[in-house]
Amino acid sequence: MPNAKGYAAAVAKAPLQPYSFERREQREHDVAIEIKYCGICHSDIHQARDEWGGAIFPMVPGHEIAGIVTGVGSKVTKFKVGDKVGIGCFVDSCRTCEQCKEGLEQYCAVGAVWTYNAKEKDGEPTFGGYSNKIVTDENYVLRLPDNLPLDGVAPLLCAGITLYSPLKHWNAGPGKKVAIVGLGGLGHMGVKLAHALGAEVTVLSQSLRKQEDGKRLGADHYYATSDPKTFEKLARSFDLIINTVGSDMDLNPYLELLKVDGSLVVVGLPDKPASIAQFALVLGRRSLAGSAIGGIPETQEMLDFCGKHNIVSDIEVIPIQKVNEAYERVLKSDVRYRFVIDMASLNAN
Amino acid sequence: MPNAKGYAAAVAKAPLQPYSFERREQREHDVAIEIKYCGICHSDIHQARDEWGGAIFPMVPGHEIAGIVTGVGSKVTKFKVGDKVGIGCFVDSCRTCEQCKEGLEQYCAVGAVWTYNAKEKDGEPTFGGYSNKIVTDENYVLRLPDNLPLDGVAPLLCAGITLYSPLKHWNAGPGKKVAIVGLGGLGHMGVKLAHALGAEVTVLSQSLRKQEDGKRLGADHYYATSDPKTFEKLARSFDLIINTVGSDMDLNPYLELLKVDGSLVVVGLPDKPASIAQFALVLGRRSLAGSAIGGIPETQEMLDFCGKHNIVSDIEVIPIQKVNEAYERVLKSDVRYRFVIDMASLNAN
Repeated sequence: MPNAKGYAAAVAKAPLQPYSFERREQREHDVAIEIKYCGICHSDIHQARDEWGGAIFPMVPGHEIAGIVTGVGSKVTKFKVGDKVGIGCFVDSCRTCEQCKEGLEQYCAVGAVWTYNAKEKDGEPTFGGYSNKIVTDENYVLRLPDNLPLDGVAPLLCAGITLYSPLKHWNAGPGKKVAIVGLGGLGHMGVKLAHALGAEVTVLSQSLRKQEDGKRLGADHYYATSDPKTFEKLARSFDLIINTVGSDMDLNPYLELLKVDGSLVVVGLPDKPASIAQFALVLGRRSLAGSAIGGIPETQEMLDFCGKHNIVSDIEVIPIQKVNEAYERVLKSDVRYRFVIDMASLNAN
Repeated sequence: MPNAKGYAAAVAKAPLQPYSFERREQREHDVAIEIKYCGICHSDIHQARDEWGGAIFPMVPGHEIAGIVTGVGSKVTKFKVGDKVGIGCFVDSCRTCEQCKEGLEQYCAVGAVWTYNAKEKDGEPTFGGYSNKIVTDENYVLRLPDNLPLDGVAPLLCAGITLYSPLKHWNAGPGKKVAIVGLGGLGHMGVKLAHALGAEVTVLSQSLRKQEDGKRLGADHYYATSDPKTFEKLARSFDLIINTVGSDMDLNPYLELLKVDGSLVVVGLPDKPASIAQFALVLGRRSLAGSAIGGIPETQEMLDFCGKHNIVSDIEVIPIQKVNEAYERVLKSDVRYRFVIDMASLNAN
């Protein structure tokens, strides 16, 4: 019997439509959650359109989930009814591999169980946050800071941790020069977080169109990458560059912007391989690295950090009936800076 | 008046021939050195053939120099006549940039003064170690361990430090799994050094032809990269992979051999850019990095380490009259594992 409702893509590239489905019964370690808000991540679109292959339909996307606990299983110790909680990109993992033991569940050797477009260990498909409720093991549920609004906090569960994790791993902080490439949903979180961590922050964006925004978000400097002088001026400047641009681009000019021992970290997944001139790596002991979201302990750390520094995402709240239109706008980068679906709108269907 | 003799390439691609030239007068901070041995590095061939562009002729190659101090300037404090000393890839640097102050002169912001095929700060060309003497500022001269033979120690000045520096920087040691790709002049030093540092060492070579050698040099494991099963079997195995192969190759299968947080470090300089699938980086927080030789303090540290562990290069000593033949054999990888020129042979000319 369907006990949950949401929006799903019936097949690849189909517009999302109302969909009723069944959430599992609450088990002893489970938390039942009423979803209040869910952010729209660019990867939702890639997956709903099966652009990465192997998609499972019908698909209820959404992995930037914020809600309220409505029930807890008999063995749940971390949460109680009424708690503000979040769920990010995964809802389970093997729990026994080296990475899981270290709290790096996103790199689980067996593969994490993704929040949607995946299968639980028992073979049941997972359905994401474009829906009114979810039931999840308490070890994969995050506590949301009380002082932050549920709508603005939702995108922290993916966009926030995707930037926070590499900033921390590559030691962004006082005395460090950090560049964020691209000022979109990911990039704007990178600017806020790097600034709050105490780094000197530069935005590298195609144009100066969003320069005022960038400064308001916490950037110390703002440069247009369409201007070749930017690359001359900033040569050997940065300890860390995080590339949030998911489309294909030439990374070599960015490698030249790194200091000796600097790292260029990609967090997007472009379709094509990058062509990398190894001279830039060898002659400055530079690194090209990648980073994917973050593990449960670090995601909780990020949320606590955001609570302390009063950081949320800049959002545009929409009713779920506008999700397909929002997808089109995301593809045109026409959002400042993240769409968040108000799940109360589901009652209008 | 010529006061030194050696072998030089008169123009790009010309065979090396006897050449008389002038070394500078010994200044107050200078050490005058009688060169006893000089190793042949693959990059000598690239440069004598002007394959990297901008070469200066006539060119006396050689940057793996071992000799004896024959004179010291009035302000020299570190060396005395009779000391066993070495010179590596550079003989000066700006001394004021961040890297020079940190002892990373190889990454000098202005550019180090390379031992040959370069110009001194006063504009005079530098001539390398295929010669009977050299005069160098004491700050760019290394002390050689007394217990090591001068011929076997010469290649440590380039091949040795090229491997030692990334092994140390990326923490090769007990409990770490290190792979060395390619068992040539660089690779065989990597195996010896990684083993002495306490790491578990795997050689990844095209075939199993040199397997016995590899084990004798200190490798715990030896695999043929021509066998696709190698890549299946070793997936997610290594903390660090050092690629010593200077020719173009597909690095993506090697990225998949890295553990989470592992690094693939290139120390060669292939002509073409590498094509890198970013998924492998992102989904394991892996890095592709580069490393170039080492600074003066670390080169001294490496030499002391080799003295302590009795490590030298496996060499084939040749008279300088056979240098052109040796070049051809290097290009065919027909040497185990480094040619070293006995400079006493210069007297036969």
